[in-house]
Amino acid sequence: METKPTEISSSKMFGGYNKRYKHFSPTLGCSMTFHIYFPPSASPSSQKFPVLYWLSGLTCTDENFIAKSGAQRAASSEGVALIVPDTSPRGLNVEGEADSWDFGVGAGFYLNATQEKWKNWRMYDYIAKELPELLKENFPQLDTTRASISGHSMGGHGALTIYLKNLDKYKSVSAFAPIVNPTNCPWGQKAFSNYLGGTKADWEEYDATCLVSKFHDISATILIDQGEDDKFLEDQLLPKKFGEACEKVNAPLLLRFQPGYDHSYFFIATFIDDHISHHAQALKL
Amino acid sequence: METKPTEISSSKMFGGYNKRYKHFSPTLGCSMTFHIYFPPSASPSSQKFPVLYWLSGLTCTDENFIAKSGAQRAASSEGVALIVPDTSPRGLNVEGEADSWDFGVGAGFYLNATQEKWKNWRMYDYIAKELPELLKENFPQLDTTRASISGHSMGGHGALTIYLKNLDKYKSVSAFAPIVNPTNCPWGQKAFSNYLGGTKADWEEYDATCLVSKFHDISATILIDQGEDDKFLEDQLLPKKFGEACEKVNAPLLLRFQPGYDHSYFFIATFIDDHISHHAQALKL
Repeated sequence: METKPTEISSSKMFGGYNKRYKHFSPTLGCSMTFHIYFPPSASPSSQKFPVLYWLSGLTCTDENFIAKSGAQRAASSEGVALIVPDTSPRGLNVEGEADSWDFGVGAGFYLNATQEKWKNWRMYDYIAKELPELLKENFPQLDTTRASISGHSMGGHGALTIYLKNLDKYKSVSAFAPIVNPTNCPWGQKAFSNYLGGTKADWEEYDATCLVSKFHDISATILIDQGEDDKFLEDQLLPKKFGEACEKVNAPLLLRFQPGYDHSYFFIATFIDDHISHHAQALKL
Repeated sequence: METKPTEISSSKMFGGYNKRYKHFSPTLGCSMTFHIYFPPSASPSSQKFPVLYWLSGLTCTDENFIAKSGAQRAASSEGVALIVPDTSPRGLNVEGEADSWDFGVGAGFYLNATQEKWKNWRMYDYIAKELPELLKENFPQLDTTRASISGHSMGGHGALTIYLKNLDKYKSVSAFAPIVNPTNCPWGQKAFSNYLGGTKADWEEYDATCLVSKFHDISATILIDQGEDDKFLEDQLLPKKFGEACEKVNAPLLLRFQPGYDHSYFFIATFIDDHISHHAQALKL
């Protein structure tokens, strides 16, 4: 079981390279794939790239963002590497793991499960601990001390919660249509009750709206884009709840409602440049 | 059987809309889908958009280019509508139509088949005749008299041959990694022998390298991008053959070899802005 990442594909784009890697994850107990987009080599070539983690949404793998977002254009010109992991453990054959599209495989919710059955679902530790360490050890061209984090939908929830719990590790955060209050929406309630059990206090540890109230030292502006024609807006995403919570503690939030946009990658592609630029500014300070 | 197109999906992107339509095609004898990307409405809104046809490659549908190319960014800023058809008839259940990925379904090669078995494969007429007429009748916001054409691989072959045979109908042409000399490569020989029969003279009617020798009134520069690390370069694509043929008749060709790039949409996404700009210039003359 090789924990060192092996390159399994490479494709040039905007002068840099999309590279896909496979490795065995001790945290998750299974083989995982992830993508890195490396910008064109800087001059001098000794210069290291800061990293932006992208956490994808329900049903996604490490491929969707790489194929559909067009983020590589801005990442290339800004000199930021993109780190794109998968969304859950795979291939473990846990009973029922693939029964729903919003739970189990492809739906790790970026938490550490506490229920025995789902003990391998430790995407929080994988993203916040294992992956940064693995990158640091294996990719000398990356400067993992300069890191930011972003994501979409379930991945937006992941980005916000991981950021809020690790303010010292990330320079900035942003999200597209994030699930900001999972304890109060059907997707979150289904996932949290199964992964974390019935104690609501445990759920709040993975709820951005609950977490933001606890922190008073958020300095970088949180950027969120939300499509107004997103069919999940009212029932699942609840961005206004997060807005209210930020206001209460004076957390700097730029929450933009984008008229006419839906929940798709077409929405992400339209505004991804703003997000890359937001992070590049923070990463280069 | 509704020949009038019905909208089946709509998604906002870069201020405009990706819209997918379904219609019954009398030319092909089956239902077909296509995409249009409409740029944001011009001001004054009475202004019509010129159109750029995009022909996709083997195995593609009308969805790949819309999801992966990122062309909508430049199409939005240039005010050019993108017309993205499918690559063959579908659902006809012709024996063997789905046996290979490079022939039959998803592999229409933009020709009019002459062999009885493949009589529905008339993608040439569909693209060059039926579709322009259908757009003209149903989309008053499009100015179909200002049209250009582009494509990838098999679709690059389609764009070049349809352009060369209809110099009065298109303002400009471009291609990514086109099959420029199908009579001399395995993909072309397999397709042409099945669709067109054994007479080589019939094949030359759909071979850009043969066709360009016949025309001496090509005024707009033909733009071609070709990745140097494209695994199909030597055996299937043969761009140098087209370069030599253009040179002989003084046809204006800009053939760019791009070091390190492969045959994928990552390559297309990297250079699509140059192509949109190339066409926008010709369309706005």
